[in-house]
Amino acid sequence: MALIVQKYGGTSVGNPEKIKAVAERVLGYSRQGHEMVVVLSAMSGETDRLITLANSVQDQPDTREMDVLLSTGEQVTISLFAMAVKTAGYDAISFLGDQIKIRTSSMHTKARIQSVDTDKVKGHLAQGRIVVVAGFQGVDENGDITTLGRGGSDTTAVALAAALKADQCEIFTDVDGVYTTDPNICTSARKIERISYDEMLELASLGAKVLDIRSVGLAKRYKVPLHVRSTFVETEGTWVVEEDKAMESMLVSGVTYNKNEARLTISRVPDKPGIASRIFMPISDAGIVVDMIIQNTRAGDLTDMTFTVPRTDYKKALEILKKVAADIGAEDISCADDIAKVSIVGVGMRNHSGIASTMFHVLANEGINIMMISTSEIKVSCVIEEKYTELAVRALHEAFALDKKDTQ
Amino acid sequence: MALIVQKYGGTSVGNPEKIKAVAERVLGYSRQGHEMVVVLSAMSGETDRLITLANSVQDQPDTREMDVLLSTGEQVTISLFAMAVKTAGYDAISFLGDQIKIRTSSMHTKARIQSVDTDKVKGHLAQGRIVVVAGFQGVDENGDITTLGRGGSDTTAVALAAALKADQCEIFTDVDGVYTTDPNICTSARKIERISYDEMLELASLGAKVLDIRSVGLAKRYKVPLHVRSTFVETEGTWVVEEDKAMESMLVSGVTYNKNEARLTISRVPDKPGIASRIFMPISDAGIVVDMIIQNTRAGDLTDMTFTVPRTDYKKALEILKKVAADIGAEDISCADDIAKVSIVGVGMRNHSGIASTMFHVLANEGINIMMISTSEIKVSCVIEEKYTELAVRALHEAFALDKKDTQ
Repeated sequence: MALIVQKYGGTSVGNPEKIKAVAERVLGYSRQGHEMVVVLSAMSGETDRLITLANSVQDQPDTREMDVLLSTGEQVTISLFAMAVKTAGYDAISFLGDQIKIRTSSMHTKARIQSVDTDKVKGHLAQGRIVVVAGFQGVDENGDITTLGRGGSDTTAVALAAALKADQCEIFTDVDGVYTTDPNICTSARKIERISYDEMLELASLGAKVLDIRSVGLAKRYKVPLHVRSTFVETEGTWVVEEDKAMESMLVSGVTYNKNEARLTISRVPDKPGIASRIFMPISDAGIVVDMIIQNTRAGDLTDMTFTVPRTDYKKALEILKKVAADIGAEDISCADDIAKVSIVGVGMRNHSGIASTMFHVLANEGINIMMISTSEIKVSCVIEEKYTELAVRALHEAFALDKKDTQ
Repeated sequence: MALIVQKYGGTSVGNPEKIKAVAERVLGYSRQGHEMVVVLSAMSGETDRLITLANSVQDQPDTREMDVLLSTGEQVTISLFAMAVKTAGYDAISFLGDQIKIRTSSMHTKARIQSVDTDKVKGHLAQGRIVVVAGFQGVDENGDITTLGRGGSDTTAVALAAALKADQCEIFTDVDGVYTTDPNICTSARKIERISYDEMLELASLGAKVLDIRSVGLAKRYKVPLHVRSTFVETEGTWVVEEDKAMESMLVSGVTYNKNEARLTISRVPDKPGIASRIFMPISDAGIVVDMIIQNTRAGDLTDMTFTVPRTDYKKALEILKKVAADIGAEDISCADDIAKVSIVGVGMRNHSGIASTMFHVLANEGINIMMISTSEIKVSCVIEEKYTELAVRALHEAFALDKKDTQ
């Protein structure tokens, strides 16, 4: 008998029939004697509907009121879900974020969970009820409703699992797990059975959109075993757990890519102390998040600075850079938005040399030019021309034999 | 400078454009220096949409969860309204029932307000904000969301006005006031300028559906001046206020009718103590509300009992009555669902004799037979054949000169 927290996303509870189906699935666990806490998202499409309403009233909706508005989405789902459980003859009770004191920061629309009061949840579990919790929302110290941003329901589930010391936290979604790479571009992509928190963090941030990255960090901190799986099939998905020896023996766990960035280069910058700050301060002041930064020193006290930004911020960043270039006496600006970042991730890299050079060799063999390189302890990323993305992913997936090996 | 509570119904805030229009209207009062508290209903159609969702999951939706579901309707409206005020360059803040501690009983879907904490509202008013409150909802002592039943937003507004000691409470709806009778059947119906709480209570319960009756009772208890008016025109509506001399000089304030009842008669009942109880206990046990009851004594210790029930409960009541008739030895049952109740209401009746007999005379003159009569201090009701309803209403309206006189 275990205490299990399960989270079902918007597509899993997209209409009354799906809600009833999910209720049946949860009851399967209850009948086995497990204590069940269910975290739900808004029905798919509902959040977008509410955002459209808000935008039709205020161009840049007030964030406090936006949270009052958006939090209704999950409120609808939890009440319907509790009704569905009761229809099946079992007992359930729904709770909003503020009713079980999911206390957050006051940063509306992107609040962070600070604490969760588990007394009420435990009390109702002890009375044999399925406890249904609204994901995505909390309450700040003023009693104002807050929301956690897109993907926030994953974080709610992990935070609850951590606070309740649950045996596991299962994230049900419309994919059946985390794959070695995108199956849409590489047919030999294979579902990963077990992966470490750190690897998942790198994969999530690189675009494998099965899990909200904040929830993985939280799961790591509180050692919550995470299980990412499909609502629509019964098979096991991917377990995200603490690193173990088997994982370390693997060189690479996955290959990811990101086509949402653009590259900017400012050339022949006089290489003086403080120059990087003069370039990046105005960009960061404009709210633009810079990903990779590479600096090459030239002869004659000149330097080149290349960096990537989200493609949506590309034009704004370019305007800022032009102004900065004039100010600091840089000679040239070049840029491109037809780039992609391809990455390999694996905790095994820590103990194996030559992984990065294998990657460069594989790309060179395919005639793919590398524009930028960035490495971390468990990741190597290369920026290449966008048109080569699929070719690069397939070549790397094959070269590291991800289709064949078991990750354990 | 006054403190004004205004309530806008669902048709007044039925879409973003209407919400913006209402915000403009409220701002008109703010600009004049008034402190404004705005109570809002769900956008028209939203509550029905939510009920449909609930019914598709549970045949008889759990009432606690139903309240969690239904309360989202007002939550959406208040956030959008606060955004609309901000778009116009003014400040506003929205509050849910539980955020300003609208404490209610735990009777889900038909809870009653017990207390309201006004500290938060007063604080934000003092800072120059328009305070926007979700109507229809509250919170019980367990922290569970409750709702007040259809029309509950009117009650929220009056309760807030009472707690805040507001100068007035304005109920904005899609009609421009209370009329001397239904304008759809009597073209000479006239808008009443001032009416007493007691008269309004009689008119509301008799079917003039402009105001929730509980809110009128509450307004009377706390002496809150109520102003019922239209969202869509600027003219004054009807003031519901304490009785005054001018009102007492009027014989009749309004004529109403009710076509939603049915009549049942049980004849030749042995007239013994306890017989009424034996007839009405099983009917009340079945949850059927009896309106009028009339007992006539016959010769020979026999009595006839006639009463009315809501037409929707007619068949159920008839079944019960048949069983009772057999038990108590009654000789006959007759019944009809093609009846109507026509009433005249006016505080002036207290001091004027002959009002009832004028009514009987008017009906007789039109050849209308009276089946039942019931009187109160400020009301006379007659049950007649349904097909004569409009004729009776017009004749009474004319006989008491309601089209001509000013009610003041």
